Amino acid sequence: MLPNPTLNLSGDRFTVHYRIAAAEGARQIAEAICLEQTVEFPADLVPPGDIRQQIVGRIESLEPVAPGVSEAVISYAVETTGFELTQFLNVLFGNTSIKPGIRVERFTLPDSLLGRFKGPRFGVQGLRDYLGVFDRPLLCTALKPLGLSAADLAELAYRLALGGIDIIKDDHGLADQAFAPFAERVKRCAEAVERANRESGRRAIYMPHVAGPVDTAVERARLARQSGAGGLLVSPGLVGFDTMRRLADDDAIGLPVMSHPALLGSFVTSPVNGISHYALFGQIARLAGADATVYPNWGGRFSFSQEECRSIAEGAAVDMGHIRPIFPTPGGGMSLSRVPEMLRFYGRDVILLIGGGLFQAGPDLVANCRSFLAGVSA
Amino acid sequence: MLPNPTLNLSGDRFTVHYRIAAAEGARQIAEAICLEQTVEFPADLVPPGDIRQQIVGRIESLEPVAPGVSEAVISYAVETTGFELTQFLNVLFGNTSIKPGIRVERFTLPDSLLGRFKGPRFGVQGLRDYLGVFDRPLLCTALKPLGLSAADLAELAYRLALGGIDIIKDDHGLADQAFAPFAERVKRCAEAVERANRESGRRAIYMPHVAGPVDTAVERARLARQSGAGGLLVSPGLVGFDTMRRLADDDAIGLPVMSHPALLGSFVTSPVNGISHYALFGQIARLAGADATVYPNWGGRFSFSQEECRSIAEGAAVDMGHIRPIFPTPGGGMSLSRVPEMLRFYGRDVILLIGGGLFQAGPDLVANCRSFLAGVSA
Repeated sequence: MLPNPTLNLSGDRFTVHYRIAAAEGARQIAEAICLEQTVEFPADLVPPGDIRQQIVGRIESLEPVAPGVSEAVISYAVETTGFELTQFLNVLFGNTSIKPGIRVERFTLPDSLLGRFKGPRFGVQGLRDYLGVFDRPLLCTALKPLGLSAADLAELAYRLALGGIDIIKDDHGLADQAFAPFAERVKRCAEAVERANRESGRRAIYMPHVAGPVDTAVERARLARQSGAGGLLVSPGLVGFDTMRRLADDDAIGLPVMSHPALLGSFVTSPVNGISHYALFGQIARLAGADATVYPNWGGRFSFSQEECRSIAEGAAVDMGHIRPIFPTPGGGMSLSRVPEMLRFYGRDVILLIGGGLFQAGPDLVANCRSFLAGVSA
Repeated sequence: MLPNPTLNLSGDRFTVHYRIAAAEGARQIAEAICLEQTVEFPADLVPPGDIRQQIVGRIESLEPVAPGVSEAVISYAVETTGFELTQFLNVLFGNTSIKPGIRVERFTLPDSLLGRFKGPRFGVQGLRDYLGVFDRPLLCTALKPLGLSAADLAELAYRLALGGIDIIKDDHGLADQAFAPFAERVKRCAEAVERANRESGRRAIYMPHVAGPVDTAVERARLARQSGAGGLLVSPGLVGFDTMRRLADDDAIGLPVMSHPALLGSFVTSPVNGISHYALFGQIARLAGADATVYPNWGGRFSFSQEECRSIAEGAAVDMGHIRPIFPTPGGGMSLSRVPEMLRFYGRDVILLIGGGLFQAGPDLVANCRSFLAGVSA
């Protein structure tokens, strides 16, 4: 009933490691993934030539890894992705995301696919060069609470920069609300940080949150650049991973990008479903152009484990060809007292994000920032 | 340490129903949601005026609904959303998505917030008018498998339209791959459906999948319109809900939009986390402009329950002011034999989506489509 075309594919394939939680039938589940992620067609009707041999996913290995848990390594022709990030994510996990008990653990892309993505413009070394900080972790905090005016937020930004914070980002709840409109906020906060830099001789940057309607994302990012912002905070769960890639790739913007996890939690809240911390906050964030990946550290307001946080740092650093390593950026209820422990755990190449905790440390915000800086410089 | 501004808010608030799975401490969890989704700041440091009174979420009710499960109704000032879809989703569930045991069940928006969204351009009645089908469910199928050429897919589209399918959509795995490039595929498939319409006197439409880089989405959608496509298939999990809204809102495109669930599964695979089927595939899809919402019906290749499917149909129809009701579009491993049962369950206002099952029903694809049509017209 169907044609059986010859496709002249390159033979290059990428591989995905799926964790399958099933007491039995792991092979049938893996075979179903091979079909679901590609032809989405009954096995017996798939044309027997290149479509069956090349387009349908291929089980490269299938091994039990724990009682009731198997790991399937499945490969796909690079051409199935159309070399676009959205369709890559679709082949990776599109429909299979709807099947409970299957989780994407990690993936490996050949250079022919990696080469289609620019990845992070700065990465770890580029962001260090940009900020002029080479020998210690970077410090980050967030402008908040929601409800303050642009002028109030700018005054906070000034004090935070003066105290020694490297990256002063918007809280991710700041969008374009009437009480602190995007354009006014960016202008005032960028100016405030620049004023602090002139006084301190430091090189702090302000990163506004670029959310809002997707058709205005590029416009807002360019306005941010023109207004003196030093980077962009982007929430791929809100605007889509490809919008983050779009902003990172734009040479007319050319700013570092920090990825925020808002609305991405459902991918990782179940250990047997979704996408691993390693792949989501590490590999995918890098592929989508983030230079730093924010996530909640263990022992704060959220529930990531120490092991999950370690895996994010690994995903941020693992070899991905020309795709640069990026900064893990743990936050989410951190305080100055946690700094020594985080330094031991993450080492030097980390951005430490303390938000509300900086305000709790004492009545003088500038002094609190100086304590933070002293803690990582010791 | 912080200013305490007067905000002159409208007083209008929207409410969200959160399901909290916790043996104890539901109130503390609800209070944490109120802070996390707005100020993300330590409670004792929140300025006591309008920020604490108006911006911080407010617990309207908190009731046990099952052993170890409570439902919290929390309201937020409409102004926190900045009247943008991305920021609405952020307030709804942004950071709280990262906390296990909390699920968004549903939400209610006042007219002052609903009025900022166009919603579905067509909705149930508009799509019926557009297709000229008033007295029965609509029929839908997908062009597949991945790997066929644009010409092969167009030939399939012709036969499917000739047989009586109303909506012939791309399979969601079709993007812009070299073996069936978007521009060529859309042109050929739209022409093929139009040719079938001339022969049959029917009014079938072709809906290409608009995925790919977000900066090309509008361009591809306009090209689709110019090439004679009758609608758009959009996967908000791949391109973001706001990109779907953008395409639906564009008067120069002006086509019906069908939402596909690819990569959205992780929101619903755990009963205690994520977003309910009702809110995700019903309410949010509508707010983001979908005229039809695809999801896997119970008893196919996926695991949604009958109750979950019913809740999607309810979310697609519930009163949301001027936001039109839309078509539930159950698919995912359906076959002709399931049609009578689906008719009894969903009634008339449904789009029945049968993909591979249409090919399995017999050797003559046109005849299979005619059986499908006869089954719903009886």
